Amino acid sequence: MIGEKMIKYPNGSKAKFKNSVNLANSSKRGIALEDDINITNAYYLDLDMAVIHKKPVPIQIVDVSYPTRNKAEITRAYYVTPSTTDYNGVYKGRAIDFEAKQTNSLTSFPFSSIHDHQIQHLKRVINQDGIAFVLIRFTAFSETYYVCAKKIIPLYYEKRRSLPYKWFKENAHLIPFSLTPPVDYLKIIDQLYFEREWLLWKIKKIT
Amino acid sequence: MIGEKMIKYPNGSKAKFKNSVNLANSSKRGIALEDDINITNAYYLDLDMAVIHKKPVPIQIVDVSYPTRNKAEITRAYYVTPSTTDYNGVYKGRAIDFEAKQTNSLTSFPFSSIHDHQIQHLKRVINQDGIAFVLIRFTAFSETYYVCAKKIIPLYYEKRRSLPYKWFKENAHLIPFSLTPPVDYLKIIDQLYFEREWLLWKIKKIT
Repeated sequence: MIGEKMIKYPNGSKAKFKNSVNLANSSKRGIALEDDINITNAYYLDLDMAVIHKKPVPIQIVDVSYPTRNKAEITRAYYVTPSTTDYNGVYKGRAIDFEAKQTNSLTSFPFSSIHDHQIQHLKRVINQDGIAFVLIRFTAFSETYYVCAKKIIPLYYEKRRSLPYKWFKENAHLIPFSLTPPVDYLKIIDQLYFEREWLLWKIKKIT
Repeated sequence: MIGEKMIKYPNGSKAKFKNSVNLANSSKRGIALEDDINITNAYYLDLDMAVIHKKPVPIQIVDVSYPTRNKAEITRAYYVTPSTTDYNGVYKGRAIDFEAKQTNSLTSFPFSSIHDHQIQHLKRVINQDGIAFVLIRFTAFSETYYVCAKKIIPLYYEKRRSLPYKWFKENAHLIPFSLTPPVDYLKIIDQLYFEREWLLWKIKKIT
């Protein structure tokens, strides 16, 4: 039963949720973390906990046609290299900015999946005192880690090929498992930034 | 000479920059403010003053073809209604979020150019203590105003058709004219949020 979670529904039927690593369709596997983050962000938005969105993929539009009066159809366009990370927004006044990556590896996270423009952007966000991080999922273990951008950026510049799984155990923050929301990363941000700071911030606003 | 600015280049030649209101091409007129904001944001980024980007237009991609091995061409896609404003980022730790609008009117700003999802989003950003505003340009006067979202949102819900030009003189902040950057809105943010707050924030970090 390793790698499977059982949920018993009220009507007595059973549903099996296999870990993403067991999914036959590898393309589905690739977007599992993204889906979980989108659900998490929608949950935060609904409960007024944070306003964090995935940025649209930047596209250069070349041709547009108008098959009907009100509907524009883009008939030729190209992908453009993004200049930022995928997710950003606001939480308790602070700017939030992060990238999400997942790996099927059992032993390490390959740096090849992080791009130079993402590192550049995270550096800039740190310089502006924003909360910058990377969410990294090891699908084989169903574990998602919150990695401070400050910790991972210097290692990126050391031209390492990968970061061992063990490194995450010691240097990153495992996001506690929950069903709703699936990737509750605000819990880690609270621990790192707000348990003391948020209180002082509030006091400052009152006084 | 009203509506024109003269710049004398070192070699003695003269260049005329007409106000956008005088441009023959009305579609060009429509993007003048956007261009100025993009230049401003690039300037802020270059000088490490702030990290603020325009969000890409959200698009639903339906068909993609691969005419050459490395180049994907989007052959069918549709525009999707955005769920946020156009610009966001981070400045001195705080989340920045804004929308930009311009009008050719000499007398008022029409509310019809602000959309419901933009107001909803700005409200959410305010609730999270972010710095939320709208940049509104009266092209006829070459004036760009910084309008706090907190001030404009209640008026939007009063179902007014427009806001008189006079209202801006009294309730908004005229962005001082400068060539570089063309829309120096951080100046206003500094006055409104940081002259006292930023100092306290820094003190808090040291102590």
